[in-house]
Amino acid sequence: MLSKAQIKYIQSLQHKKYRQKSGQYIAEGDKIVPELLRGGRVRELYAAADWIAEQEALLAKVPGLKVVDVALPVLKQLSALTTPGKVVALLDIPPAPPAVPLTGAVTLALEGIQDPGNLGTIIRIADWFGIARVICSPDCVDAYNPKTIQATMGSIARVQVAEGELAPLLQQGAVPSYAATLHGRSIVEFAPVKAGLLLIGNESRGLSQPLQDLCTYRITIPRLGGAESLNAAVATGIICGRLLI
Amino acid sequence: MLSKAQIKYIQSLQHKKYRQKSGQYIAEGDKIVPELLRGGRVRELYAAADWIAEQEALLAKVPGLKVVDVALPVLKQLSALTTPGKVVALLDIPPAPPAVPLTGAVTLALEGIQDPGNLGTIIRIADWFGIARVICSPDCVDAYNPKTIQATMGSIARVQVAEGELAPLLQQGAVPSYAATLHGRSIVEFAPVKAGLLLIGNESRGLSQPLQDLCTYRITIPRLGGAESLNAAVATGIICGRLLI
Repeated sequence: MLSKAQIKYIQSLQHKKYRQKSGQYIAEGDKIVPELLRGGRVRELYAAADWIAEQEALLAKVPGLKVVDVALPVLKQLSALTTPGKVVALLDIPPAPPAVPLTGAVTLALEGIQDPGNLGTIIRIADWFGIARVICSPDCVDAYNPKTIQATMGSIARVQVAEGELAPLLQQGAVPSYAATLHGRSIVEFAPVKAGLLLIGNESRGLSQPLQDLCTYRITIPRLGGAESLNAAVATGIICGRLLI
Repeated sequence: MLSKAQIKYIQSLQHKKYRQKSGQYIAEGDKIVPELLRGGRVRELYAAADWIAEQEALLAKVPGLKVVDVALPVLKQLSALTTPGKVVALLDIPPAPPAVPLTGAVTLALEGIQDPGNLGTIIRIADWFGIARVICSPDCVDAYNPKTIQATMGSIARVQVAEGELAPLLQQGAVPSYAATLHGRSIVEFAPVKAGLLLIGNESRGLSQPLQDLCTYRITIPRLGGAESLNAAVATGIICGRLLI
């Protein structure tokens, strides 16, 4: 059983203010929660009895996990989704990693990504291509927003998400940097990149001119047709698909 | 002024049944509608007075266009969005193109894409890479769904979307076909493809085995990290970014 206060607390975590205050976030869904149970910091789990029975073996492997059997109407109250699943997890937000690029690796830097789905999809792309750290400018949407978590499909447990100003990182010039723009060198000209900072800008404005000017290379996905732009997450995927493999 | 019956008609076009019956669809938003005015089949436009004044030059170029000045509360009634913009357009669905690959070009074939946002994003990717035709299996979400239209960002006016069974196309074997799968040849092994059929499967199940078996090549985006899969639209973008440029 969950008390009204507990339900209210879990609901409050849909808002950044309360996530920051408590250091906790929520994740839900039959696909994502099992992934997070394997790699995340799940503290409590609220689920339908049949889901708990099905996942018994997995649940037994998570030390100190509190599992609460709740009815579907309660799950609906806890859920941020229009079509709630059978499980909601309460997790600790991991300590913030330093907002610096990793040595000898590719780091992704995001400026002003506003759509939580895009940010989550970008974190999932990072995870696919083995990018261990994503640095978000302070005006990006929060990585622990329920919609972002949903879109990461569990990758939030494997990718470090840092927050920090991007200009100072570029001014240090410790690693080569690649700015995704509409008027740079074609991505096909580059050999696979083993270390560096890959910068992706806001969905409608793109990467700001000051950041572009600080980057080693401006890179562009050649356009063969009529679309004016690409979705930010799709562009990130295409660039990773050329520069990292 | 719009009558209650007109408002009801426009609202009905949020549902596939009524779109099919009437042969019309709606598009909205300050970015997409101007694009469609340039390339689409806009019949009527419902917009705030200030929007109409701003776009006067563009509106004058569209022959036979009916422009209706409506108040914001009415726009809110017409809109399928949670945050309505200042304009809703009523368009004719173009005649269905034949569900066959184009000769000497790359055609995209989609099996069971369920998410309207994914389908729209894929149409936008096709447009960016100069793919003129997308063939959707009958179990794909409708391309004229308002959410799909929104995600195409106007590309729906430049890309032909056909509907048809995919197996017969592959059995004809007129062009080489590339099946996106998790266990095929790496996309880095392929030289740029100038003509052929590129197949993308359902978001969770991927491409069905019978279709995979009919394809000339099974292709895969090499995975360097931990994510189990990629979003279907992102995968389409990455594959196009390797095979088409």
